[in-house]
Amino acid sequence: MKKALSAAGLGAINGPQHLIELAGKNGFEAVETSGSALLKIADEQGVETIDTWLREAGVTISTFGLAVEWRQTDEKFSEGLADLVRQAQLAKRLGVRNFCTYVLPATDMNASQFMAKAISRLRLCAQVLKNEGIQLGLEFVGPHHLRTMWKHPFIWTMEQMLDMVDAIDEPNVGLLLDGFHWYTTGATSEDIKRAGVDRIVHVHINDARNVPVEEVLDNDRLSPGEGVIDLTTFLQTLKDIGYEGAVAQEILTKEPPTEKPEVLAEKAKNAYEKIYATLS
Amino acid sequence: MKKALSAAGLGAINGPQHLIELAGKNGFEAVETSGSALLKIADEQGVETIDTWLREAGVTISTFGLAVEWRQTDEKFSEGLADLVRQAQLAKRLGVRNFCTYVLPATDMNASQFMAKAISRLRLCAQVLKNEGIQLGLEFVGPHHLRTMWKHPFIWTMEQMLDMVDAIDEPNVGLLLDGFHWYTTGATSEDIKRAGVDRIVHVHINDARNVPVEEVLDNDRLSPGEGVIDLTTFLQTLKDIGYEGAVAQEILTKEPPTEKPEVLAEKAKNAYEKIYATLS
Amino acid sequence: MKKALSAAGLGAINGPQHLIELAGKNGFEAVETSGSALLKIADEQGVETIDTWLREAGVTISTFGLAVEWRQTDEKFSEGLADLVRQAQLAKRLGVRNFCTYVLPATDMNASQFMAKAISRLRLCAQVLKNEGIQLGLEFVGPHHLRTMWKHPFIWTMEQMLDMVDAIDEPNVGLLLDGFHWYTTGATSEDIKRAGVDRIVHVHINDARNVPVEEVLDNDRLSPGEGVIDLTTFLQTLKDIGYEGAVAQEILTKEPPTEKPEVLAEKAKNAYEKIYATLS
Amino acid sequence: MKKALSAAGLGAINGPQHLIELAGKNGFEAVETSGSALLKIADEQGVETIDTWLREAGVTISTFGLAVEWRQTDEKFSEGLADLVRQAQLAKRLGVRNFCTYVLPATDMNASQFMAKAISRLRLCAQVLKNEGIQLGLEFVGPHHLRTMWKHPFIWTMEQMLDMVDAIDEPNVGLLLDGFHWYTTGATSEDIKRAGVDRIVHVHINDARNVPVEEVLDNDRLSPGEGVIDLTTFLQTLKDIGYEGAVAQEILTKEPPTEKPEVLAEKAKNAYEKIYATLS
Repeated sequence: MKKALSAAGLGAINGPQHLIELAGKNGFEAVETSGSALLKIADEQGVETIDTWLREAGVTISTFGLAVEWRQTDEKFSEGLADLVRQAQLAKRLGVRNFCTYVLPATDMNASQFMAKAISRLRLCAQVLKNEGIQLGLEFVGPHHLRTMWKHPFIWTMEQMLDMVDAIDEPNVGLLLDGFHWYTTGATSEDIKRAGVDRIVHVHINDARNVPVEEVLDNDRLSPGEGVIDLTTFLQTLKDIGYEGAVAQEILTKEPPTEKPEVLAEKAKNAYEKIYATLS
Repeated sequence: MKKALSAAGLGAINGPQHLIELAGKNGFEAVETSGSALLKIADEQGVETIDTWLREAGVTISTFGLAVEWRQTDEKFSEGLADLVRQAQLAKRLGVRNFCTYVLPATDMNASQFMAKAISRLRLCAQVLKNEGIQLGLEFVGPHHLRTMWKHPFIWTMEQMLDMVDAIDEPNVGLLLDGFHWYTTGATSEDIKRAGVDRIVHVHINDARNVPVEEVLDNDRLSPGEGVIDLTTFLQTLKDIGYEGAVAQEILTKEPPTEKPEVLAEKAKNAYEKIYATLS
Repeated sequence: MKKALSAAGLGAINGPQHLIELAGKNGFEAVETSGSALLKIADEQGVETIDTWLREAGVTISTFGLAVEWRQTDEKFSEGLADLVRQAQLAKRLGVRNFCTYVLPATDMNASQFMAKAISRLRLCAQVLKNEGIQLGLEFVGPHHLRTMWKHPFIWTMEQMLDMVDAIDEPNVGLLLDGFHWYTTGATSEDIKRAGVDRIVHVHINDARNVPVEEVLDNDRLSPGEGVIDLTTFLQTLKDIGYEGAVAQEILTKEPPTEKPEVLAEKAKNAYEKIYATLS
Repeated sequence: MKKALSAAGLGAINGPQHLIELAGKNGFEAVETSGSALLKIADEQGVETIDTWLREAGVTISTFGLAVEWRQTDEKFSEGLADLVRQAQLAKRLGVRNFCTYVLPATDMNASQFMAKAISRLRLCAQVLKNEGIQLGLEFVGPHHLRTMWKHPFIWTMEQMLDMVDAIDEPNVGLLLDGFHWYTTGATSEDIKRAGVDRIVHVHINDARNVPVEEVLDNDRLSPGEGVIDLTTFLQTLKDIGYEGAVAQEILTKEPPTEKPEVLAEKAKNAYEKIYATLS
């Protein structure tokens, strides 16, 4: 399982190059970053610029965020497609393994119609990515407060997301499994085993405060190891079923951290080393 | 547009043979009936028995009801599949054009998860039917009282159903368009044109009482021409866009009608003649 | 059935604007033209320029050629995709109904592997077009000399192409039916009926010399009515099954015609009037 | 990687029960057997009979042969579907992981049309199996003499089969990788790595005579370890990429072996132990 860094939790990161350098300096093997930003860089400076950053840092890119707007109108969705095609081509060129997006647990739209729309749109994204040999990871989002933040309940459990993945019905679609949502939905080691390694595209870790699980807030996360999530069980199960992809830190907080990115990246390094040391 | 009869509204119909005979005697070109019942007859008496009924009555079968249980558990759904395969083969043999099912406008399940499940299951039904050259028609159900009869809203408009059809994403899936649901959802001639002839698999007609549309009850329908639905506009639009399939009478009532099927079928004949005479 | 013009057979046509004007002046309702060319014009001059041409001529665009390279390497195919997305968006904006491409009857590749590749690639094109409500038409190519022009036989009959369409398995894919290939494959009125109106996306007409059908050359076509193809039966059958799309003239010749486009367009006008007058 | 036995190479095996017993007695964890035969047994004696055999032998069933006739007419194919549905349900009940079929490297049909047909038919099989959580494995067949045994070349390499799998485009379809075909197509360790563990459904081993590879005959196989195939590299690569499915012995010979099944099963045991001992 590859240690990976995202910008979330590192404070004032100054673009992808900065993230890649910090990852390399702190023993991370991969980063999760913005395909839009990298496409702009590739267009302006040439893709070789990015190659150089990655090579010098000894880092790969595991994941791009899915930049297409699949949650609003048909028109908005269509507008982003040409760019998605170009990002997918860049991703293939750079060896990026997957694009990921999250699915909120409630919606103001008619929930069933929105599911039908989401399935059609994410299927087309998956088809475009499949053509470049890239996977699409869908993240279920568990915190209780979000389940009632919009008018109608949508989906938030791993099982529900797997039903959505089944309905999309493309070979390259699976889960982005975030330990925070695993925890806030009361999921277990068994749920991960039941999903199976073939359906896990990408993994996030971070931690949750020691409050009743119903009160855990999505944007109030802790660094891995500072909270109550049993990340050893989480990662050990992933390892046991043969997961070999990236495990990226993603720490969402109300206020950006005030420490320097260099300090925060070293903190991440130490947190990962500590947790990985508990795995057999 | 082929005049067609279903058993709904004909009272004490004594099986498919009876329906076929009444259709033939009253100038109907087609019937909508039960594939399960006909499969049983074909198994026990040979398919030639059904051939004879149809030939002697000068009638075809346009539609079988989709007998698979796609609304409950995965297990229940699977149980019906082998029979669906056999019914589809019988349907091909008999020249049946489509299988149809209705989709209720509310559900006790999580609506979005149920949509994902429904899409996966109905897709498999469509795939099985496609192999025999048969279409699948999905009926949206409009009456207001049904929209709140179960815990969560599902879908009830033509546009929502077309989104569901798109998400199923098989070439042989389209609408069963029932004039009653067209009326109770406030749909127009324009909606039919926008859907387009390629997406209309089967059509139902009947009529609605002269009460506020919000109070129209699903199981309190009238014979075509006895109520307030503008069936001339409905059918003229279908004719104008080139619909050439069946238009079946389906009259759902609280109590079965007390008149004899022979009388009710003749009444249907007269109702159809009267409405068809208004079409240009 | 909409009378339509393509540039093929009109000599020195000076771009899409010229084609659109000639179509309008000669009673054609639609044109088949290059999406690549129109995308360039839209990018440089604004889509309103094209709107004006169409409005002033009283003409629509029925068809764009599929500009993606789906016959070579995976890389070549991918390169054209972002442009396809943009052409599809332009097509939707302009009311274009379909994109079409032809499939040669022989190949230097392993024929079965090329079929698998073609299915995967054309499916992705269809998926992109479907998102904009546009169809994909595939043209089978009949002339005998082409069937052995490359190492391995591919497909050339209507039935074979429908098998390919089935294998692509998207709701918006069907036939481009060219009277020349209908003739050179010995197809009949029955074959058109069997295909059915739902599977015919676009139609071409032109004519063939009075030589044994095995000797008819693909690039030696005549104007409609000048040769031996029974275009009355061809078009009458299409009309009878309810085809309401475009019927575009496409005359491929060894040497470009020497007459002026204005003369050739008027000739086309007269040819169409003569044939359409034979239809009931 | 689970050691598995098929009946091929064990001589006069007396039905599935016999195979299961021999597997258990000789340290095999799984068997590959006939779904048709087991469905008949389940229908006649109850599925619990099979449960008992498996439990007492300490063996699972990894694989059923795909019993549907997908290589002939549409009618023949349809005939087998209802049974496939029932076999898939039995397979789920028994914990069977996949159904497999082989694809011959030449055909008397038009090769590209047959590919289109095969894709449509195998896709429907995959869809039925997917509904029960079961995979479909497709075996490419390498021996040179078979490539010209029928009129037109079809596909025979791993890469070609993966193109076919892509065109089928269902999440549960992948390769049955047989060491014999790996050897006779000149495939390497790299090819296995490029395919990736997600696309390998089932594995066969056996061995080839020490003759030029062009002269190796499909039905003249040796026991694993008796020939020239580098099974250590083959299996080590599979192990390295994380393959954890079954590795079944399948020895096709011109004449059935004359030794007793008990002797042959023990021979298989020893062969497997010897090869597995070479793996790191």
